[in-house]
Amino acid sequence: MRIFDNALLYNPVSGTWIPSSFSVENGKIKSVGAPGSLSGHLVFDLEGARVIPGLIDAHVHIESSLLTPAEFGRLVLPHGVTTVIADPHEIANVAGTAGIDFMLSDAKNSPADIFFMVPSCVPATPADVGGAVVSAADLACYVGNPQVLGLGEMMNVPGVLFGDAEVSAKLALFRRVDGHAPGLSGEPLCEYVSRGIASDHECTTAEEAEEKLRLGQIIFLREGDAAKNVAALTPAVTQATASRCCFATDDRHVDSIAEEGSIDNCIRTAVSAGMPLELALRLATLSAAEYYALSDRGLIAPGRVADFCILEEGETFSVSRVYKNGLAVQKKGIVETAEVSFPPFVCRLPTEEEMQLPNGKLKIIETIPGEIITECRIGSAGDSGVQKILCVDRYRGEGFGLGLINGLGIERGALATSVSHDAHNIIAAGATDAEILQAVCAVADAGGGMAVVCNGKTTLLPLPAGGLMTFKPYEDVISEMHVLNEALAETGADKKAFMSLSFMALTVVPHLKITPRGLFDGDAFCDVDIQG
Amino acid sequence: MRIFDNALLYNPVSGTWIPSSFSVENGKIKSVGAPGSLSGHLVFDLEGARVIPGLIDAHVHIESSLLTPAEFGRLVLPHGVTTVIADPHEIANVAGTAGIDFMLSDAKNSPADIFFMVPSCVPATPADVGGAVVSAADLACYVGNPQVLGLGEMMNVPGVLFGDAEVSAKLALFRRVDGHAPGLSGEPLCEYVSRGIASDHECTTAEEAEEKLRLGQIIFLREGDAAKNVAALTPAVTQATASRCCFATDDRHVDSIAEEGSIDNCIRTAVSAGMPLELALRLATLSAAEYYALSDRGLIAPGRVADFCILEEGETFSVSRVYKNGLAVQKKGIVETAEVSFPPFVCRLPTEEEMQLPNGKLKIIETIPGEIITECRIGSAGDSGVQKILCVDRYRGEGFGLGLINGLGIERGALATSVSHDAHNIIAAGATDAEILQAVCAVADAGGGMAVVCNGKTTLLPLPAGGLMTFKPYEDVISEMHVLNEALAETGADKKAFMSLSFMALTVVPHLKITPRGLFDGDAFCDVDIQG
Repeated sequence: MRIFDNALLYNPVSGTWIPSSFSVENGKIKSVGAPGSLSGHLVFDLEGARVIPGLIDAHVHIESSLLTPAEFGRLVLPHGVTTVIADPHEIANVAGTAGIDFMLSDAKNSPADIFFMVPSCVPATPADVGGAVVSAADLACYVGNPQVLGLGEMMNVPGVLFGDAEVSAKLALFRRVDGHAPGLSGEPLCEYVSRGIASDHECTTAEEAEEKLRLGQIIFLREGDAAKNVAALTPAVTQATASRCCFATDDRHVDSIAEEGSIDNCIRTAVSAGMPLELALRLATLSAAEYYALSDRGLIAPGRVADFCILEEGETFSVSRVYKNGLAVQKKGIVETAEVSFPPFVCRLPTEEEMQLPNGKLKIIETIPGEIITECRIGSAGDSGVQKILCVDRYRGEGFGLGLINGLGIERGALATSVSHDAHNIIAAGATDAEILQAVCAVADAGGGMAVVCNGKTTLLPLPAGGLMTFKPYEDVISEMHVLNEALAETGADKKAFMSLSFMALTVVPHLKITPRGLFDGDAFCDVDIQG
Repeated sequence: MRIFDNALLYNPVSGTWIPSSFSVENGKIKSVGAPGSLSGHLVFDLEGARVIPGLIDAHVHIESSLLTPAEFGRLVLPHGVTTVIADPHEIANVAGTAGIDFMLSDAKNSPADIFFMVPSCVPATPADVGGAVVSAADLACYVGNPQVLGLGEMMNVPGVLFGDAEVSAKLALFRRVDGHAPGLSGEPLCEYVSRGIASDHECTTAEEAEEKLRLGQIIFLREGDAAKNVAALTPAVTQATASRCCFATDDRHVDSIAEEGSIDNCIRTAVSAGMPLELALRLATLSAAEYYALSDRGLIAPGRVADFCILEEGETFSVSRVYKNGLAVQKKGIVETAEVSFPPFVCRLPTEEEMQLPNGKLKIIETIPGEIITECRIGSAGDSGVQKILCVDRYRGEGFGLGLINGLGIERGALATSVSHDAHNIIAAGATDAEILQAVCAVADAGGGMAVVCNGKTTLLPLPAGGLMTFKPYEDVISEMHVLNEALAETGADKKAFMSLSFMALTVVPHLKITPRGLFDGDAFCDVDIQG
């Protein structure tokens, strides 16, 4: 038994810092008492350092980090994140339940604990040409699985509101259902909530969060790479509501986690926005444990897992050392990740003739910096800054959609990626037809990845795990990303061009998008012709 | 669909009163919005009246009310208590799982929802000669029963601390376990908590509650007939801890519920002690629902059961009208209670000679007003105020224990009752041997009850349901209690003499008690001779 003495222990129940001593045995907290009150063989004097329970990420798509679950765990753990609740929505769109099973299996090798909410909306919409359809019947096998805590974000709001049979069957399977209803309010929100959808992580204003809290939803304050809502939602978090709010990262790349952090970054952001640290820590620990009924964590208390963090001294919140199951985390530890074979890419690429567009006025996808919605403008292929965009079916080789895009900033060369929400076909854009096709070929030949073709050179970050993730250690991936970003810079493209590109096939977001069938009107929710 | 418009709605998430309109359909809340924002066929204008969610009693032994579950529900419902979590510990000591099954079955007829925590300690101690032993194997059939939420108060603290196999087997059966560890603190408390025992309702000081809260336990603030702790614990309830505190009544008689209330009385008591009403209401609604994972209640929000109360105007908290499943509660409604046959009483009564005590110095049970602990004093049978006390085995006719008691105040006549914690044998005391035996006979012949014999007249309140409860409507029971209390007054006894008497066989409480085997030393935990 080891004693950690003279800790200034954060208690999320009282919301206070209490001078304490605590003991650890067999990976669990054994006792907590006043400083000097416990005796044992090995005593570590923490000399008054602040100690907090391990942090919990209430909702994340691990695939967005480009890492496998085990490697993701190794990355976030030194940031104090000891428990992760993941929704394997992306890989399920690629590989169905086989993808989900890979995530559950690989998560067992993670040094941080990873639980799952199984994806509710695969495909995201009937308009998506993905790799799989996951039905309620397919999900039934996950009920009672100890790694699975419920049903992941229910994005099919109309399906909920109009009582779609398949949606209802999925809702009926699980006792806990996460929500996804950006901007929903009033009676439609009431109807949505009444179906037992317990949480929401899509709030963008404090008013939206306050309404959803009042109606009984648990609110996850999200700080991801694309969507950053923590500061805006901070006014909704009070002493009263803190027990019903959590933090989530949703989507973060490997490099931004490494540079800015994970839930620790949420805490820093919230504190900067005016949230007392003691409230922010409640969200990041016990509140998330309570929502997911993880009664064995969230608090440094007897019988709970010995997951805790020692904080750096000073004003800014920063995790110094992390203990998982009572053991100090070695940042350089190696994780065993089994390399699994995913189905090969099956693509039919356009010929030179098929890359030609009609003359005259055409619809152009107009990107908006920092947003995933787009505008539709009418112009011609020769307009300044306008380039071709290509979306290639990777699952059945059934074809491709061709269009025009403006705003990526590509001056020369081309980009292609198999990370392309939510169906994850190959999406590409560039200055010349040849370079576009070369980039697509590089991605397809590698069984997935992100490619830049520029000045005759191809730079590839391979993503062999379903075209979404790599099996490599995160340090290597960060190096590869730097190389890729240098190549990207040579094209003149915006730094976030890959992220922008990856959302151009997301049919649920307005206004003009692209699928392997061609252009898609996100408002009318139907395919449209390119003629303007 | 009915609309309740212009309500001043208490929201336990925000802890605030919000002008609102809400609609009810099929017994559930459909929508909640701003006043005037909802439309429907039937609109009730609440004219700004305060509305709160239905109250929840987190822990009660229904048997102590003398009423069956269905009738108990009818009694507490007009007090705003729409959900009750009951531990059928008393009837299980009498009749084992048959007693538990009776409670579960009868509860289905209750107009208030009654859930159960199955009793963990039957018998309470090996020293108790009760009607049943309930093992872990016996309890296994309740796992997964939708009426059962977990394991009831684990009173066997030594059994927990020393890893008793049967105790461990019971703990392993259920995910949620209520605690009972009065005064436990420091490392023994840590050990107790580490076994997953999630709540405590035995705190008597704010410091004790604060320690248990810090260690992760949920604290029930109890206001029963015997133990009244709400005022003392009020300082432990803060904005931070309120989500982890609830109210409980534990043990209340039918007449005190009718006169003072149930959880509504807890709220009034807490507010008098300085707790803001908004915090007290959090405890009485959402906090209890959260602890028991009753996600369909605790809050007036879409999809949840339409259990709510309209409050009286004015400063004092008082429930005016109650709605259960959307329907107005009719106070005079009749409840269907099936009369069930319990095993007959099998007693062997002492003969005239066996009622004789030895001469010389004898041990006397000295009662302390308002307490259930006793002192042992040495004296003789002829001392002023000292009377005989008799405890008769009602299960096997194996005998009786005879002793002396002081402090009940009986001047003439005798009392007997089959409510006698926790084994519920017949216990009696009185001025003459003949009257004591007459009172015992009256109770035994009726198959249980409370009897007063005085001036040649026998007054009986029959308790045919296991000797603990009556099948009658609560109004009749209150009338009968008034008659019984008048008879009690004739004996000169203290008003609380029946309650005091009913705890004289409780072996877990120090110092001198009585069982059908004779006197019992609650400190040494063994039978003792009456010789002083």
